[in-house]
Amino acid sequence: MFERIVILGPGLLGASLLQAAKRHGLCKHTAVWSRRPETRLKCENQPWCDAVFAEPGDAVAGADLVVACTPVDTIVPLLAQIAPKLKPGTMVTDVGSTKSLICRQGRAALPANIAFVGSHPMAGSEKTGLEHADPELFRGRACFVTPLVETPAADAEKVVRFWKALGMEVATTTPEAHDEIVAHLSHLPHLLMSAYCAYLSTRDPAWLHYGGPGLRDTTRVAGGDPALWKAIAMENREEILRALDAFQRELDLLRAALHNQQDFALRHILERGRDYRVRLRPLGEDKKR
Amino acid sequence: MFERIVILGPGLLGASLLQAAKRHGLCKHTAVWSRRPETRLKCENQPWCDAVFAEPGDAVAGADLVVACTPVDTIVPLLAQIAPKLKPGTMVTDVGSTKSLICRQGRAALPANIAFVGSHPMAGSEKTGLEHADPELFRGRACFVTPLVETPAADAEKVVRFWKALGMEVATTTPEAHDEIVAHLSHLPHLLMSAYCAYLSTRDPAWLHYGGPGLRDTTRVAGGDPALWKAIAMENREEILRALDAFQRELDLLRAALHNQQDFALRHILERGRDYRVRLRPLGEDKKR
Repeated sequence: MFERIVILGPGLLGASLLQAAKRHGLCKHTAVWSRRPETRLKCENQPWCDAVFAEPGDAVAGADLVVACTPVDTIVPLLAQIAPKLKPGTMVTDVGSTKSLICRQGRAALPANIAFVGSHPMAGSEKTGLEHADPELFRGRACFVTPLVETPAADAEKVVRFWKALGMEVATTTPEAHDEIVAHLSHLPHLLMSAYCAYLSTRDPAWLHYGGPGLRDTTRVAGGDPALWKAIAMENREEILRALDAFQRELDLLRAALHNQQDFALRHILERGRDYRVRLRPLGEDKKR
Repeated sequence: MFERIVILGPGLLGASLLQAAKRHGLCKHTAVWSRRPETRLKCENQPWCDAVFAEPGDAVAGADLVVACTPVDTIVPLLAQIAPKLKPGTMVTDVGSTKSLICRQGRAALPANIAFVGSHPMAGSEKTGLEHADPELFRGRACFVTPLVETPAADAEKVVRFWKALGMEVATTTPEAHDEIVAHLSHLPHLLMSAYCAYLSTRDPAWLHYGGPGLRDTTRVAGGDPALWKAIAMENREEILRALDAFQRELDLLRAALHNQQDFALRHILERGRDYRVRLRPLGEDKKR
């Protein structure tokens, strides 16, 4: 499918992507660039990594697919940096959790003879780093591909085929629709659980011993990297604020039902929540179990 | 340890308890009462169940340990109903998720020659029913035992030993301290996720396909039984309202940091949340893996 895939920022997603690409025979040659010397050192010993570079411009020379896997607020500057070194016709994508800014500014940062289509494979984890890489990370998970109106259909289709080849279920949306969806399904619950855990940290530390399995599952996302999530939240702040305010109205209704001892109203909210939860699609990992 | 253990309401917890008691040799004989004929029928074919009764008073005759495993709002009436049939010296406990009302009113509903100590083994699941019973459900999990000031220490100690024999890590607190703790660690996050899922149900149903593993884990508790959780929330409403209002102040700080683009303030909340999450004690099930 590709001659040479280059990953900029080989963390959990980037390293998993190269393992999966090698396993599925989607490329002949792989290369990575990492800002960190210790990550470059680790990559040199990996079977899924054929070449390691200390400069992103050197890494992308000769690539026909470049995937930017760095934190969301670093992707556009990185694309501007590699722009002069890309050969015409190279396909560039990214795995950032926000899409509107990256897709518009990323497109503007690259020459017209470079294909750029944003992606968001929803296969992250609160675990980060290539140590946790897994070639099956993508299987059965949702992936967004977010072309601009002016993006050639063939370019978007090529990126869609790539993620499907890794086992993902791909949805094509505008960057703006993507950002509204992930604000609701990912960023809002993450911030709610971060605020919840931050609040618990103000209470008796002995309570740390009393949590059940529900608490562990509910708060798992709050274990994510604060720097990464701060950047994501700031990039998507308008959509997140809209989602948070709309959620707040539902929470206020629940509080009122509880405060006023309105059994029926409280039960109705619990039922609506339960009905939604049971309709969530099963994940790839559930199917595997 | 006991001659005859009787479970009132053999659902997930009650059935798991009898399986575990049999496995660990904690009793010679077991009996159950269920309100529902279909549950009684199921119990008749179970190796962990020696006798099945259609009347709770008949079930508890001759028992030396009775465990009420019915919904929180039914426990006190049930104790009042069985009171005349208990033999002197019988130990009575329950597994309700709220403790202040049950411990005070339950004590008052039973004769003085009956020992009553409330319990709350935190080993539930969004799965209910004896079909999902598991004798290892309790291993490594936290359990509260909540004696009143006037409860004889020997009675509380006997209940503590029982839960420890099932593999639980037992904390002894007042019923009021228990209710404050579970309002924070269980009821609040449950209600937050119920409100969150209820809100999502007002948005585009196509989004049901886009959730990642984080969303599934975060919202798992919202799949719980609305009737059970309505009863729990109403019984513990004062503590939950206090916890919710204190959490709301943290959420308001997060919203302000995001709205005002205060990078440092937002990151500080995310860091406090992350630091708390990583300090949560590992569960029995984590140790097993």
